[in-house]
Amino acid sequence: MNPNRTKFDSEMQVRPDDLDMNRHVHSSRYLDYVLAARYDQMARCYGMPMEEFIEHGFSWVMRGASILYKRPLGLGDWFVVRTWIHEIRENGVAVAFEIFRKEGMKLAASGSCDYVIVDGASGRMTTLPVWIIERYSV
Amino acid sequence: MNPNRTKFDSEMQVRPDDLDMNRHVHSSRYLDYVLAARYDQMARCYGMPMEEFIEHGFSWVMRGASILYKRPLGLGDWFVVRTWIHEIRENGVAVAFEIFRKEGMKLAASGSCDYVIVDGASGRMTTLPVWIIERYSV
Amino acid sequence: MNPNRTKFDSEMQVRPDDLDMNRHVHSSRYLDYVLAARYDQMARCYGMPMEEFIEHGFSWVMRGASILYKRPLGLGDWFVVRTWIHEIRENGVAVAFEIFRKEGMKLAASGSCDYVIVDGASGRMTTLPVWIIERYSV
Amino acid sequence: MNPNRTKFDSEMQVRPDDLDMNRHVHSSRYLDYVLAARYDQMARCYGMPMEEFIEHGFSWVMRGASILYKRPLGLGDWFVVRTWIHEIRENGVAVAFEIFRKEGMKLAASGSCDYVIVDGASGRMTTLPVWIIERYSV
Repeated sequence: MNPNRTKFDSEMQVRPDDLDMNRHVHSSRYLDYVLAARYDQMARCYGMPMEEFIEHGFSWVMRGASILYKRPLGLGDWFVVRTWIHEIRENGVAVAFEIFRKEGMKLAASGSCDYVIVDGASGRMTTLPVWIIERYSV
Repeated sequence: MNPNRTKFDSEMQVRPDDLDMNRHVHSSRYLDYVLAARYDQMARCYGMPMEEFIEHGFSWVMRGASILYKRPLGLGDWFVVRTWIHEIRENGVAVAFEIFRKEGMKLAASGSCDYVIVDGASGRMTTLPVWIIERYSV
Repeated sequence: MNPNRTKFDSEMQVRPDDLDMNRHVHSSRYLDYVLAARYDQMARCYGMPMEEFIEHGFSWVMRGASILYKRPLGLGDWFVVRTWIHEIRENGVAVAFEIFRKEGMKLAASGSCDYVIVDGASGRMTTLPVWIIERYSV
Repeated sequence: MNPNRTKFDSEMQVRPDDLDMNRHVHSSRYLDYVLAARYDQMARCYGMPMEEFIEHGFSWVMRGASILYKRPLGLGDWFVVRTWIHEIRENGVAVAFEIFRKEGMKLAASGSCDYVIVDGASGRMTTLPVWIIERYSV
């Protein structure tokens, strides 16, 4: 296993419907951006799109998330969502993230999300298969 | 069939995450409010919750929507979504709606949504069964 | 004035949080995509970003929208939002739109949005200035 | 100051547009529910609606949030958002929350949100005034 796992980047742009009444990205939308980045990176960087998990009878469930807000993103901002596996556990993974406003690459938010792997049929938490651990150990 | 079909009301409150950067309810959220009212009224007023449709192997698909905005809803406003079947067609229904700010019952928006009924297995448009027409003819 | 006004395209990708319980883009989000395309195209294609309107003391308010759904967009789909001014009125514009799934450029949805121009200070509808009409007559 | 601050409850219902492709409430929406509960409780329970903060030249900014998911909420579920001030700091407050599915009052999610108070004009973090501390010490 690789203790220094690769960090991957996804680029996106703020949509007007992401803004709150203060003209900043609504606080909960940053977690949506992380989710979008994970879907992108699962397919593009780990070679294992969500559809493949589902075909193998697995699903990911989020068990927790934490986020710190540094600088708000605003209308039309392009941003980079960087994520990496920072811990592999028996039943899941912890994914760390950083979101940067693209211009100047200043940190907008950072945090982590805990996911467990569940059996798609029973909906119960299961053991992370070795082949998934291997694909995630890049 | 009843040419003057009953209008039903659902009451809801604007959530802060519904607001746009102008501190008004985001224009697309009014259609979400109509959808929420339909789910509520299908179960509560027509005695036919969405789950029952799905158990019968049907699903509703929206084919079109139109909306006119009169007065914006704002932070914390309570509002009433009134909907009624204004046309029953071979393959679906047209649902008319009005959204009122509860205080003073002033019209905020009005419009209509066209739904077709599809076979859940094939995903294809099907003929509206008589028993559904009857339940909707109140 | 140009009777055949230019159509402009913006490319975007479906985010996971755009999906509804049927794994299709939620019906109201298509209007959010149109709004995002307009912001992009106002700045990039008409040379008149929303911020410039606001600096001039104007704001756009949506008065109505209509949409027809043809084919659903799904997880991760790239799509193209094409919009154009199809009518210039005394107090605003009607914008037509088409949304295509990028792969194969099949139509996903089409429709139009009516906007009026309001004075930012009073919030009242005003007359569309000639310089805006000119910029929109491309 | 009261070390055992009062917990307040707000009741809400899941809207269909809150659901994700797994027919559960989308993970980020729980934070929207907490925000909605805070607005409700600021006005109804603390006697200090957000508008009053703004009139006094203040605004609240979220600096961080953490959430644990226990059981998913689903279509049409009524739920209770319980929040309380669990720490008052020089520049802000930490608000703890629990979200229960109303039927059976089973825990759906829990967590906390950190807010700082900012001067509305400068946008800078400021010192929490005594009168706000007093109102929050119930």
